[in-house]
Formats: sequence, C-alpha cells, structure tokens
Amino acid sequence: MPRYAYVNGRYLPHADAAVHIEDRGFQFADGVYEVIAIVDGTFTDEEGHITRLGRSLAELRIPWPVKPGTLRILMRELAAKNGVRNGLLYVQVTRGVAPRDFRFPADPAPTLVMTCRRTKWQPRAALEKGVAVVTLPDIRWLRRDIKSVALLAQVLGKQAASERGAFEGWMVDPDGTVTEGTSSNAWIVTGDGVLVTRPASNLILNGITRQTLLRLAAAMQMRVEERTFTVEEAYRAREAFVSSASAFVIPVVRIDGRPVGEGVPGPLGRRLREAYLADAGVADPVLGGGR
Amino acid sequence: MPRYAYVNGRYLPHADAAVHIEDRGFQFADGVYEVIAIVDGTFTDEEGHITRLGRSLAELRIPWPVKPGTLRILMRELAAKNGVRNGLLYVQVTRGVAPRDFRFPADPAPTLVMTCRRTKWQPRAALEKGVAVVTLPDIRWLRRDIKSVALLAQVLGKQAASERGAFEGWMVDPDGTVTEGTSSNAWIVTGDGVLVTRPASNLILNGITRQTLLRLAAAMQMRVEERTFTVEEAYRAREAFVSSASAFVIPVVRIDGRPVGEGVPGPLGRRLREAYLADAGVADPVLGGGR
Repeated sequence: MPRYAYVNGRYLPHADAAVHIEDRGFQFADGVYEVIAIVDGTFTDEEGHITRLGRSLAELRIPWPVKPGTLRILMRELAAKNGVRNGLLYVQVTRGVAPRDFRFPADPAPTLVMTCRRTKWQPRAALEKGVAVVTLPDIRWLRRDIKSVALLAQVLGKQAASERGAFEGWMVDPDGTVTEGTSSNAWIVTGDGVLVTRPASNLILNGITRQTLLRLAAAMQMRVEERTFTVEEAYRAREAFVSSASAFVIPVVRIDGRPVGEGVPGPLGRRLREAYLADAGVADPVLGGGR
Repeated sequence: MPRYAYVNGRYLPHADAAVHIEDRGFQFADGVYEVIAIVDGTFTDEEGHITRLGRSLAELRIPWPVKPGTLRILMRELAAKNGVRNGLLYVQVTRGVAPRDFRFPADPAPTLVMTCRRTKWQPRAALEKGVAVVTLPDIRWLRRDIKSVALLAQVLGKQAASERGAFEGWMVDPDGTVTEGTSSNAWIVTGDGVLVTRPASNLILNGITRQTLLRLAAAMQMRVEERTFTVEEAYRAREAFVSSASAFVIPVVRIDGRPVGEGVPGPLGRRLREAYLADAGVADPVLGGGR
C-alpha cells in the first residue's frame, strides 16, 4: 500500500511531500505539532490533542489552517488512505511561507502537514521489565507549555539518554527538580504510595495523556499530589513511570543506574495504563487484553 | 532575472525550492544557519561565518554537507546565478530527512539549502537618526552559542519589539543583565567612554561582526571591556548600538523609551561601522563613502 502524506490540501505520495525552504517551520521553528495514537481505529484522546493544538496556535498567534472540525475529518481521511488502524498520526502547523524575517508576516497562510504511519509500539519487554531513565540538565526555553517544533534541546537530550543506554532522559531544572522527559511526562510513587507528578506550568508540556491519567487516578481514588519532586526524591521512589501519547504508560525501573523500588514495574503504573486504554475503549496494543 | 535557490546539489527556481516534510530542520529545528552580507560582490567576514558554521555543526554532530571549500564555491555560484552583488546570502544545514524520531539517525545525509537575495539595507534614517530598542525577558534555551534554527523565542521577541515600535529587542536574563538582541549583539559606551559588550559564553551567540568589531576596536585603541551589563547601566550609557552580519552597526538612541545620552547616534558606533566596512574593503552600502 503506498504511503500518503497531507500537505496544505493535498494528499501526496510520502516521498513527494515537501514544504518550501522559506516555510517558517523550517527556518525559524515557528510552528507547533501534535501526535495522536490510533488504536483499533480509535484516535485516543483526540479532543484533548485538538484542544491543545488550538492553545499552542493561540499562544503563537498562528491562525488555524483549517477549522478544527475539518482537521478531524482530514485526519480520518489520511489514516484511511494509509490503511492505518493502529499507528501514529502526526500533525504540524507552521506560520507558513514568507520571505525570511523574524517578524510575523502580515498575512500568514499557515502550513498544515500530516503524516500517518503504522507503529511498532513499545516492545512488550519494555512493559514487562520496565525501562531505564537518566537525568540531564533541562536546557530548554521557558515556554515549554507550547508544543512547538523548536525541539532541538529535546533531540539532544534524547540522544544523550540513548547513548547512555536509557529509554528516556528526565530533564532537571537548576533547582534540582525533575521537569519531565524529553518526550514524555515523569511520574513517581512515594514510599507511602502517593502518586506524584509535576504541576502544569510554563516549565513543562502539559501532556494530554498526563491529564487523562490524573483524571483516572482521581476516579480510582489514588492519592495524587501535583507538585515538583527532586532527583533525590525520585531515587527513593517506590515506583516510577513515564506517560506520552505514543507510549501511554511505560514503567521506569532504573534512574541513573539505581533501581527504583525493587527494580521491577510497579502496580500503579500498570493500573493506570490499563485504565487509560479502557477509558479510550481499546485493548492494549502491546499487551492485548479485553476492553 | 529569475531567482534561484540551492537545495542539496541543485539550483532550483525559488518557487520550487522545497525540502521533505520529514526533514529534521522542519520537524525538530535540528539545524544551523549563517547569514552573510555581500557588498560590492565581497562576502563580508566570510571566513568567520564558515568557521562558525563548522562549530555549530560540530556542537550538534551534524556532518558537513559539502566541504567548506566547496561551500564557498557554491555560495559564489548562487550569488552569480541571482545577479546579486549587494545583498544577503543565507545558508542552512540540517541533519537531513529521516523517519521522525528524536534520536539522531544512524546515517544522516545532511540537507544544505541556500538562498541569495538583493537587500534593502537598513534605511539611511536608521543610521542618521538611530533606532529604538526595548528590553524583554530572555526566555531562550541555554545553548545560545549554537546558531541553530530553533529561533522561536527570537521570533516572539522581535515581534514584541516591533509591536512596541522598536527596531530590536534586547533580551534580559533573570539576573538583570542584557544578553543580546534577538538578531544582533548589544553594545554600550559608558559615561567615561568605555565600550562594553557581553563576553561570549553559552548565553549569547558570538557574533562574527561582534568579533571583528572587537578586533578593530582594539586596533583603534578604544577602551573595551567584555563584561555583562545591566539594563540600568544601559539606561545610563552615553551611547549604544547593535551589530549584526546584515546590518553591520546601527546606532541605538532609545532604550525602553529613554534617550541614550543626548538621544542621537554616538561617535564610537559610527567609527566602528566605518572601520568594519573599510576592513572588508567595501564602501558603506547605505551611506556610501570611499573605501
């Protein structure tokens, strides 16, 4: 089946999908994006992702390229054209093409690009055995709440983590608190069983999966604290995990080489993963199981 | 005369110059750039710009897309094809096209893009009357020494400055010190005639024009201090100016609405502009004058 991408109103063979070299996404990172998981044909947390896309656009004063309702239709068309019922949909909007000038163009025509691909989800072993994270200085800008394509710091962080044999890097602000992963939110469970994750602010991206997990944790009457936590506290955690739109929940069993708790995946992360996928109305694409 | 751009080995009509939507420059801001002014056919500070491009690439571990010597030839070819003897040459290198993944691709094929255009230099009035700057919080990441295309903070800063009627925004770190302009370096002259600009570090881009001006200032036996300065000190300056590859030296006569000195362009900035262009062996493209 040939692969198609969507670029500004057209479905193009993937290899031909291009943007102009003066697109502000290419020259200035002047754009935003979302990644949505498709499981059994269901767009998980679609509403949340569309809402956040709108917020990111508004913060940068980039107009919607199409109406949100139209975008949802295009997303389904692209998934169908690619025959994807299990995979990832990537949406990027930029301020469009304009002669190079830092200032906003007077009359922007935003660029809308989408790709959709089947995904090898996280390997089963990642869920059964857990993954390692390492901590890194958080060198990013101070508007991390905007899901922009200015991702160079995250690229460098993920690469550094990977070279240290870790699945993810947990970024740490100068005050010693963990902000988040390079492409995920960070969670710990304290020794007395309290689920802790950093509150939303300009210092982290407010993950859509994160928001849904918080809602589900409250519904399951878990004890939850949205507060900062330090690397030292994370070392002492009973359990840890990361959340993201493409990986849902992945257990963390080592931080900087130190075992988390007993060094095996913990129960709260597993329950939250199950609850997340049940809430989405789908079976776990990695572990299977009923809805 | 039709306009041409250079994209990965080909000269393309400007309208057709495109990169793939999975170019890492577009999706991750995983790339770097340089802007070089061409005056009377001379590429000003070419050596410095090529050297810095190499440094930026090395910091990000992106291979050179072509050898530096080849790049210089291509730059000249592109300028010739566009009939540009006075204008700007823009060079961008990214880590190339790869399936979307934060980690570096194993075998990157870097993207090389260049544009070249005639330029309306700064209007004569900007030099004769000076320009205004406003101060803004510096919200950028902490590797500002890399000339990356992750420019979103600078875009927002320049736009905010422009909307406040200013030519440039001077960005200010939390400690109250001025880092630099959104696309220029910041300079002041103290009440007792000392030229002050911030030292190179990870907190500013080490401007090529800045480096040449420092060399020329030393040669002219100006008193120079490379040190941080606060917004308050800038308010009390006798003179101020900005430097950049595309504007050379532009006098600043208002900071946050307050006049700098007498509110007219000062002599040191003017002398340095003259010295810069004389050193490059060209006449001032705005003010004219002999070489």
